[in-house]
Amino acid sequence: MYPSPIVSGQQAREYTPGILDHAIAEWRSALGPEAVITNETDLARAGLCTFSIRRTVPVILKPADRAQVQHIMRIANHYGVPVYPVGSGKNWGYGSGVPSVSGCALLDLSRMTRIVDFSEELAYVTVEPGVTQRQLMDFLTARHSKLWMDATGASPDCSLIGNTLERGFGHTPYSDHFGHCGNLEVVLPSGECVHTGFGRIPGASTAPVYKYGVGPYIDGLFTQSNFGVVTCMTIWLMPAPEYMQAFFFRCDDEDGLTRLVDALRPLRLNGTLQSAVHIGNGYKVLSGLRQYPWELTGGKTPLQPDQLRQLSRSMNFGYWNGSGALYGTRAQVAEARRMLKKALKGNVTRVQFLDEGLLRVASSFAKPLGWLTGWDLTKTLELVKPLFGLLRGQPTAEPIKSAFWRKRTEGKADADPDTEGCGLLWCSHTAPIRGEDARIMMEITERITLAHGFEPIVSITLLTERTLCSVVSISYDRSIEGEDKRAMECYHQLMAALLAAGYPPYRLGAQAGYSVPAEEGFRNLMQTIKDRIDPKNILAPSHYVR
Amino acid sequence: MYPSPIVSGQQAREYTPGILDHAIAEWRSALGPEAVITNETDLARAGLCTFSIRRTVPVILKPADRAQVQHIMRIANHYGVPVYPVGSGKNWGYGSGVPSVSGCALLDLSRMTRIVDFSEELAYVTVEPGVTQRQLMDFLTARHSKLWMDATGASPDCSLIGNTLERGFGHTPYSDHFGHCGNLEVVLPSGECVHTGFGRIPGASTAPVYKYGVGPYIDGLFTQSNFGVVTCMTIWLMPAPEYMQAFFFRCDDEDGLTRLVDALRPLRLNGTLQSAVHIGNGYKVLSGLRQYPWELTGGKTPLQPDQLRQLSRSMNFGYWNGSGALYGTRAQVAEARRMLKKALKGNVTRVQFLDEGLLRVASSFAKPLGWLTGWDLTKTLELVKPLFGLLRGQPTAEPIKSAFWRKRTEGKADADPDTEGCGLLWCSHTAPIRGEDARIMMEITERITLAHGFEPIVSITLLTERTLCSVVSISYDRSIEGEDKRAMECYHQLMAALLAAGYPPYRLGAQAGYSVPAEEGFRNLMQTIKDRIDPKNILAPSHYVR
Repeated sequence: MYPSPIVSGQQAREYTPGILDHAIAEWRSALGPEAVITNETDLARAGLCTFSIRRTVPVILKPADRAQVQHIMRIANHYGVPVYPVGSGKNWGYGSGVPSVSGCALLDLSRMTRIVDFSEELAYVTVEPGVTQRQLMDFLTARHSKLWMDATGASPDCSLIGNTLERGFGHTPYSDHFGHCGNLEVVLPSGECVHTGFGRIPGASTAPVYKYGVGPYIDGLFTQSNFGVVTCMTIWLMPAPEYMQAFFFRCDDEDGLTRLVDALRPLRLNGTLQSAVHIGNGYKVLSGLRQYPWELTGGKTPLQPDQLRQLSRSMNFGYWNGSGALYGTRAQVAEARRMLKKALKGNVTRVQFLDEGLLRVASSFAKPLGWLTGWDLTKTLELVKPLFGLLRGQPTAEPIKSAFWRKRTEGKADADPDTEGCGLLWCSHTAPIRGEDARIMMEITERITLAHGFEPIVSITLLTERTLCSVVSISYDRSIEGEDKRAMECYHQLMAALLAAGYPPYRLGAQAGYSVPAEEGFRNLMQTIKDRIDPKNILAPSHYVR
Repeated sequence: MYPSPIVSGQQAREYTPGILDHAIAEWRSALGPEAVITNETDLARAGLCTFSIRRTVPVILKPADRAQVQHIMRIANHYGVPVYPVGSGKNWGYGSGVPSVSGCALLDLSRMTRIVDFSEELAYVTVEPGVTQRQLMDFLTARHSKLWMDATGASPDCSLIGNTLERGFGHTPYSDHFGHCGNLEVVLPSGECVHTGFGRIPGASTAPVYKYGVGPYIDGLFTQSNFGVVTCMTIWLMPAPEYMQAFFFRCDDEDGLTRLVDALRPLRLNGTLQSAVHIGNGYKVLSGLRQYPWELTGGKTPLQPDQLRQLSRSMNFGYWNGSGALYGTRAQVAEARRMLKKALKGNVTRVQFLDEGLLRVASSFAKPLGWLTGWDLTKTLELVKPLFGLLRGQPTAEPIKSAFWRKRTEGKADADPDTEGCGLLWCSHTAPIRGEDARIMMEITERITLAHGFEPIVSITLLTERTLCSVVSISYDRSIEGEDKRAMECYHQLMAALLAAGYPPYRLGAQAGYSVPAEEGFRNLMQTIKDRIDPKNILAPSHYVR
């Protein structure tokens, strides 16, 4: 169905014949037969993602609770069979749920869906790894909670813990997911259980509310690594502000990015902008509004800058298109708006503000929308509504439709990009929030993607007070001969060029493995820890750490 | 001069005869003779702190740079001589600069005072461990920088890195020191050097601005631990806000704490209060205003609650006394002030606001101060000015004067509590920000301290959005027979009682060692890491990790 893998980077695990059968038999007796899956269809599905890396998955294990995870790890250790944990397997663009090496048992934690603890007063929730964005949203809604979660633009069925451990980000003031969690319960490769922060002190009332605990703060060890399986975590929730106002701006000047980034930096630094502002280029907006304009290009790819310009004029979006939100009391938001307007003055073509009331009106009357964003009227609401929701932490399935950008079939919100042959590779690199850095990143990105026949679909996010992140979507159609290979080459060239220019990635996909350059000292230290806590290298081999 | 140690907890290191001399000789030839100190006076001083733990320090090593630190560690490893690193040794109340066990070479990093990197634009500074609060303050002032540092209430000569590694806190919105740092350079016990975050990727422009890097985030491993010597660190600075307004409130109702804490929680959670609000009890304020009132008590201790009441009436302070500040534009501060007033209404006796302009006026005219805080006029300014400075990140030597509370000699700001026989033990426990928890903590604290003959000198800090910290000062006179012993007993009882009630400490002093209860899994994991990266246990043995 799909081409075979062309980039492996990691070696498949080889077993002594018969070993795997023994392990599976033991897992069956430990978990019950229905929790140990070996049918061909499911196994084939488990090895698929949105690009050309495929792994052989010999068995899927679906534990019901932490004790079963511990059991699984002990058996895995005994037989030396590697195990790769996933929450929901929806790590789209970075390898979905595909194990880091072939031969791994897939440890599917999606049955562990307990919400273990919740406090409206102290604004936190403690969850297991199967709890998805949707489940938490429903939970909060059912309780009429005044707390907001933070959602990524990935699937509503994405695991909260999974995203947090990859240090993913969202769109509210709690966008730094790892920055807003603690109290981890971790099963080590040995099967031993460790609690972090104050969770390690019996009866500590501050376990769910204080991050660091006492003694070494070790939570970070379990992010972007293969040192343990996190089976429970406390996630902090944000008290809903009295008022939220989204803003949208556009800048039609191709060279406007430099000034825009420099103008926004002081506001991000001083906290006027509390959340991660996004600046999408025209390609990014277009891929959100519609699929590839085959008719305009006569079937040719990539979409050239002048063709994009034509579409942006007719569909009314800018060369750069920003969005974000202001949070607080009405007076706080008004003051932030004043400062934002002042900063943007002269740097954007227009800026519009949108609150819930206005959105409600807009939803009733399609026509008044014209002045709202200046974008294509029929499509605007479709794009704005889920984005507005994300800005207040509501997960949405909409953005994933853009994975169908180059497909000839239409992408639906409940579609599965893994099985529909969508090609999607995300390349997420960081730079200081400085216009000149943003400009250089864009220049590199445009040059390399277009040269490989792909559009530079880019969203620049002011991720933290000092750091921006450029997320490049290499979006293609896997059913077209040769595209898998070209996309992967494009990814690796882009990665190498951005790294060489001083812009390292904040996160890696399954295609990258542990391939980021690093000084020997750091590598040795990680290897030392890995060797000691996982001597048989059975947990997610090569996932960030060899 | 002082009683000999009564609580050891840790075992002194014993050497094969002659080994130490060999090590010292090698250190001499590596560092030069002036950097290796063995005179009796300095060694005796190095073993002193503000309570009854004394360690034998056989040698003090003063490296000039990271390469020398690496050299020191290699030699230490070769001979198996333990080494205890300090930045400035000003960890007052927690053991000053006294090594964790007797027999450690004191690795005094105070000569490493380079400010390696600084960016006004991106608001950070990169420093070595000898850089003190004062040095950074002077550096920023000399550059007319628009950036603020965050200062602890400890000495201006306190090491920035030292405080951050103990996860200390200050008074501005950047009060969480560990939360605002990254890019560590660490010398491991082996002498190998490791860079964390993006510092490990050559040429990464985001090394000083992005905390987590890619792959495992390991900075926390080097805080409150003994896994490495941090020789360089980037510290983020806060852009000076347009306006700051300090607030002071008092509550004369003994039972008012519960309501007060519950009233402030929503404001801390929603970010109206961006910094760590402090609530001091009457004892705390009194110990800041003056020394022990021997005349009133006829020489007896402790000061009884009714005596305190008498003093609070005459000196005009409350049973509970709060302080903090609001930051932003004038409009943002006005809105925050409105919300704060609303929350405090009915919960405090009075609330006053103070800005720089008013403070300048107040400094010129002593009299108008009466209405400002209602406190003793002549003393008010003395207390308020340094506190106001702390709220904007200016270090001050004033608070340490309170270490002389029970002394018959007067404490001066440049005094050295270690050598003047001041007794000071800090006991810093956490609770969720809930009135009921604060009340229980206070009840336990008052009962135990008074029973041991000490005043419950307490400052309750709203440390994070969800966690408060009660810092109890056990303040006494070491020259009085038996006080050392009683103070240490008081400390251990208080620690045990607060732990048992569910309130663990956020930080430990040299007197506590690794004595906090913890599940076996966590202890094993830490031991596993320690054994592997420091097999001879030569770096700060027993400092949080055995």
